[in-house]
Amino acid sequence: MALYVYKFGGTSVGTPERIKAVAARIKTAHEAGDQIIVVVSAMSGETNRLVGLAKEMQLQPTDREMDVLLSTGEQVTISLLSMALHNLGCDACSYTGAQVKILTDSSHTKARIREIEDARIRADLDAGKVVVVAGFQGVDELGNITTLGRGGSDTTAVALAAALKADECLIYTDVDGVYTTDPRVVPKARRLDKITFEEMLEMASLGSKVLQIRSVEFAGKYNVALRVLSSFSEGNGTLITYEETEMERALISGIAFNRDEAKLTLTGVPDLPGVASKILGPIAAENIEVDMIVQNVGERGTTDFTFTVNRNDFLRAKAILEEVCANLGGKQVSADNSIVKVSIVGVGMRSHAGIASTMFKVLADEGINIQMISTSEIKISVVINEKYLELAVRALHTAFGLDKD
Amino acid sequence: MALYVYKFGGTSVGTPERIKAVAARIKTAHEAGDQIIVVVSAMSGETNRLVGLAKEMQLQPTDREMDVLLSTGEQVTISLLSMALHNLGCDACSYTGAQVKILTDSSHTKARIREIEDARIRADLDAGKVVVVAGFQGVDELGNITTLGRGGSDTTAVALAAALKADECLIYTDVDGVYTTDPRVVPKARRLDKITFEEMLEMASLGSKVLQIRSVEFAGKYNVALRVLSSFSEGNGTLITYEETEMERALISGIAFNRDEAKLTLTGVPDLPGVASKILGPIAAENIEVDMIVQNVGERGTTDFTFTVNRNDFLRAKAILEEVCANLGGKQVSADNSIVKVSIVGVGMRSHAGIASTMFKVLADEGINIQMISTSEIKISVVINEKYLELAVRALHTAFGLDKD
Repeated sequence: MALYVYKFGGTSVGTPERIKAVAARIKTAHEAGDQIIVVVSAMSGETNRLVGLAKEMQLQPTDREMDVLLSTGEQVTISLLSMALHNLGCDACSYTGAQVKILTDSSHTKARIREIEDARIRADLDAGKVVVVAGFQGVDELGNITTLGRGGSDTTAVALAAALKADECLIYTDVDGVYTTDPRVVPKARRLDKITFEEMLEMASLGSKVLQIRSVEFAGKYNVALRVLSSFSEGNGTLITYEETEMERALISGIAFNRDEAKLTLTGVPDLPGVASKILGPIAAENIEVDMIVQNVGERGTTDFTFTVNRNDFLRAKAILEEVCANLGGKQVSADNSIVKVSIVGVGMRSHAGIASTMFKVLADEGINIQMISTSEIKISVVINEKYLELAVRALHTAFGLDKD
Repeated sequence: MALYVYKFGGTSVGTPERIKAVAARIKTAHEAGDQIIVVVSAMSGETNRLVGLAKEMQLQPTDREMDVLLSTGEQVTISLLSMALHNLGCDACSYTGAQVKILTDSSHTKARIREIEDARIRADLDAGKVVVVAGFQGVDELGNITTLGRGGSDTTAVALAAALKADECLIYTDVDGVYTTDPRVVPKARRLDKITFEEMLEMASLGSKVLQIRSVEFAGKYNVALRVLSSFSEGNGTLITYEETEMERALISGIAFNRDEAKLTLTGVPDLPGVASKILGPIAAENIEVDMIVQNVGERGTTDFTFTVNRNDFLRAKAILEEVCANLGGKQVSADNSIVKVSIVGVGMRSHAGIASTMFKVLADEGINIQMISTSEIKISVVINEKYLELAVRALHTAFGLDKD
């Protein structure tokens, strides 16, 4: 008898009909003889409705009260799904985060899970019940309701799978798996049957928003086998495993890209110890996140320093950098918010040389100028002009053999 | 420094604007230097919305899951009210029933409160915070969410007032107090400044639906001073006290009536031991509640048996009674669903003779025939034809000196 954790997001439980469809799916799986835990989010739209009410009360509600408010969304869904299961003759019992209990720290709206009590869930599973758990929420040591922040329901599912040593954690979304790249950009994109956690992390952080990074990290840490699949269609989705790549594995698993970045360069700053922190310190102090960072050696004891930020932070970051430039005696600030980042990702590149040069040649052949390069063990990212995005992604997709048959 | 428990029902917190108005009222009271606990219901309409969702899942959802679902209603209100208080610069903290905790038995949808932990609330009050508690809900020993059933928020407020030995429990509703009778029937009806618990119990059970009987019983048992007042206007409302009547107290405090009753009579049944239970047993077995019961001695060893039921149960009760009549060898069943019950209520009648005969004379003077009579220590009820309701109530209101100056 296998134990599975199923997770359904807000869209998958967005209407009474969809909740019933989820119940039917769960019932089928339960009748096949498996033990099942279901984690659900708030019905789509509900969180926005609640946030709207909160904003009418106070411009900036406290995090504690926001958690009390928002946690009702999943509580509604767990009871409705349990009723729908009962209606199909499937024994089920609902639990809020506090009831499980899912113990977290006290960082309201972005709490971290510390511990999960499994006694009650185990007893229900052993009694043949489907256990329905509210995602996204927990409780701190004082009994305050907490929420886990964005993507929190995925985290709940993975944490439960880890705590109960589930055979697999199935994340149902509105996509049917992880693709080699965005099919809207490359019609020939293929669904991957498998991908490693490391690759998934690089894909996710680079803009393939199938799963929240945190839940993937969590799954990797506790060796939970994750599967991403669609609520609205059949199919096996994509399995995200912690196993090393197989022999016949492709060099590259996918092409990720991010249109939300902007580039800032400070030229002619003195090349002295501590200069990087003097440049980035004021940026970090304003809570602006920096993504890629590249420093080149320049002429006569000066250096050029380039980094990317989210486009939303572009103007603020530029203003700060101009001040920094004046203070440090730099030459000039140049800024460009019409760039994109394109990355190739694959654990295969660990054991194969020449991947980077292939990538650069493909881009050169298309006449695309590379503005920045950054590499890690399993990915290579380049910054290029945004007008070349589709061209670059399609050319790389074909060159690395990712196109559909 | 006094401690007050305020309770606001669904209409009083039915919109964001009304929640803000409640917050303003609480802030004023808090600034006067008192310690304040606020108990709130779900926003009006919310419970119906949730019940509607449940019905789409299952015709008869389990009580446990209904409680999980419905308890979200008050949870939303406590967070919103806390935010509105914060917005006015008033320190406040919200608690669900489980968080307080309000320990109940496990009778889902109609749980009874067993115990209230007061440590956390006391600490917050001592720290100068307004404590906002979700009405209607609690938690059983296993951590299951329970609800207290109809009028449960009133019960929560009274129970908290009892547990924390509050100076007064203020129940805000959409009426501005308890009246000598329904002002829609008798325009001269007066608001009572005070009423005793016993009188209130008789008034409530007889159809003056200001407070739920259970919360009044509870308040009486624990000597909690209750005050009923309006959310939408100023005024001191009506204080419901456990003190005995004052010297100058009126004989009669109010006139109650109930239009929802129907009368059933079984004539000519053998006057033998056990006949009453043979008649009422089958009625009770069908979950039909019986209100007044009168048995007269009849002729030649037979008796007539009359009782009243809710009009909704009239036809079912009549059918059952006809079967009973056949089985017992009774003479006939007569049934009348165009009757009303009118009652005069007052602790004053304990120490004064002649109240009943005054009542009967007033009705006789108006030509109103009395069909049934039932008395308790502090009330006298009669059943009359429904067409005389207004006439009877007005005549009694005047005769017992209840009219406004």
